[in-house]
Amino acid sequence: MKKQPIGIFDSGVGGLTVFKEIRRAFPHEDIVYFGDTARVPYGPKSKSTVLEYSLQNARFLMHCGAKIIVIACNTSSSVALEYLRERLTIPVLGVIRPGSEDAVATTRNQRIGVIGTEGTIRSKAYPQAIEALLLQAKVYSQPCPLFVSLVEEGWDEHPVTRVVATEYLQPLLEQDIDTLVLGCTHYPILKKVLQKVVGSGVTLVDSALAVARQLHNELPMPQSDGVGKDIFYVSDNEDKFAAIASRILEQDITSLHRVILCESWFLA
Amino acid sequence: MKKQPIGIFDSGVGGLTVFKEIRRAFPHEDIVYFGDTARVPYGPKSKSTVLEYSLQNARFLMHCGAKIIVIACNTSSSVALEYLRERLTIPVLGVIRPGSEDAVATTRNQRIGVIGTEGTIRSKAYPQAIEALLLQAKVYSQPCPLFVSLVEEGWDEHPVTRVVATEYLQPLLEQDIDTLVLGCTHYPILKKVLQKVVGSGVTLVDSALAVARQLHNELPMPQSDGVGKDIFYVSDNEDKFAAIASRILEQDITSLHRVILCESWFLA
Repeated sequence: MKKQPIGIFDSGVGGLTVFKEIRRAFPHEDIVYFGDTARVPYGPKSKSTVLEYSLQNARFLMHCGAKIIVIACNTSSSVALEYLRERLTIPVLGVIRPGSEDAVATTRNQRIGVIGTEGTIRSKAYPQAIEALLLQAKVYSQPCPLFVSLVEEGWDEHPVTRVVATEYLQPLLEQDIDTLVLGCTHYPILKKVLQKVVGSGVTLVDSALAVARQLHNELPMPQSDGVGKDIFYVSDNEDKFAAIASRILEQDITSLHRVILCESWFLA
Repeated sequence: MKKQPIGIFDSGVGGLTVFKEIRRAFPHEDIVYFGDTARVPYGPKSKSTVLEYSLQNARFLMHCGAKIIVIACNTSSSVALEYLRERLTIPVLGVIRPGSEDAVATTRNQRIGVIGTEGTIRSKAYPQAIEALLLQAKVYSQPCPLFVSLVEEGWDEHPVTRVVATEYLQPLLEQDIDTLVLGCTHYPILKKVLQKVVGSGVTLVDSALAVARQLHNELPMPQSDGVGKDIFYVSDNEDKFAAIASRILEQDITSLHRVILCESWFLA
């Protein structure tokens, strides 16, 4: 029987931090990663558009033979997880629940901050997941829309980023949080400046590790031998993707393809 | 015979500054505006993707009966103007040539700065157009990718925007420019802070007025009576669009519809 891959999708390159942890945890599995670099960012888009794009991405991964789908994108996980589960015949994992479990395991004062895109914060997915795990938790949320642009501009060490981060995080610090969930796959790249702004009393939580852990419980047909293959697909800018991916993954990207959407407009 | 509208498209809301000037100059014409708010921004996307999206947008406007198409988006004008002209049966206007004419008419020392998205600057469309009009012109270009995010975040008066603008514009000021082309429809919204950063010795050029002027020479079947209708289409976030549009246009948006893309993936 043909080996079926784990499918991962993200709005762009951010999900590679999730890919990296899954690759490390599952050396025998084939993994197909799709980055929707033509339509990034998902954060400011409406719920209905994120649902539609997420379903298209998931169907593309199923077309590649995926046996399970991991939504690495927080915005998409926040709004589209149930929507995909209702429509697909294979299991689907998001990053919200694993990230929330880590936050609950980390906090000591039950005061948790969550930062993310407009779409993620508007969905209230993190507060709902965290409060379901820990009734007495107080969750304080803050959208940080400029962070993605600053990361993509390569300004992760720029003084402007510190000013912006201070402005965004101040309201959370005033709530005396001791844990901060990085609710967007781009944000771990800003870890250094974020840690400086929040100080050593606040622990940063990033979901990538937690997702790989949850995948252990849910993976169908786990492979126990052979070397897993990596296959990457993007919807635009494959050269830029290859450059960033080889830096994040510390490996050459050998199997990278571009896919194109065949599109026609109709009235909503 | 049925009245045919002027069609305008942009990657999002920025092209409304162009719409406004065309509406003012052509009170009897119907105008159909399409803002691709689901796939904004175009600036960081590859040339082939911008070509494809521009053609889809133009075809949608032709489907609405447009007699001429105005590309309000600088990125799309930079890379897709000839591509659309070769493929469409109606005239197509971009913003690069009119903006370049204004820049050449404005400069006294023949030293012109151009700011725009990565896509616009990489295309070299402005330097080519300006140098074709004024052989001895020296054109200095600078991509300013964070400006669009800052505008969309509503930070047009925020101190961070001034810091970012100073960093981007310093290399142009060192070249002793006396004219600065705002080569992106979002940038006029930052006019106040940009003028402060460049000082009163530098004149800012925005293409919207120049486009309306050029349209006078190219418009097929001009209408000389009746009140023109405004029809808006967007691909996402119609409420957000309506709010921004009514502010920019200082009028209520009554005819606004959402269009959806019917899509399927294939390998490039």
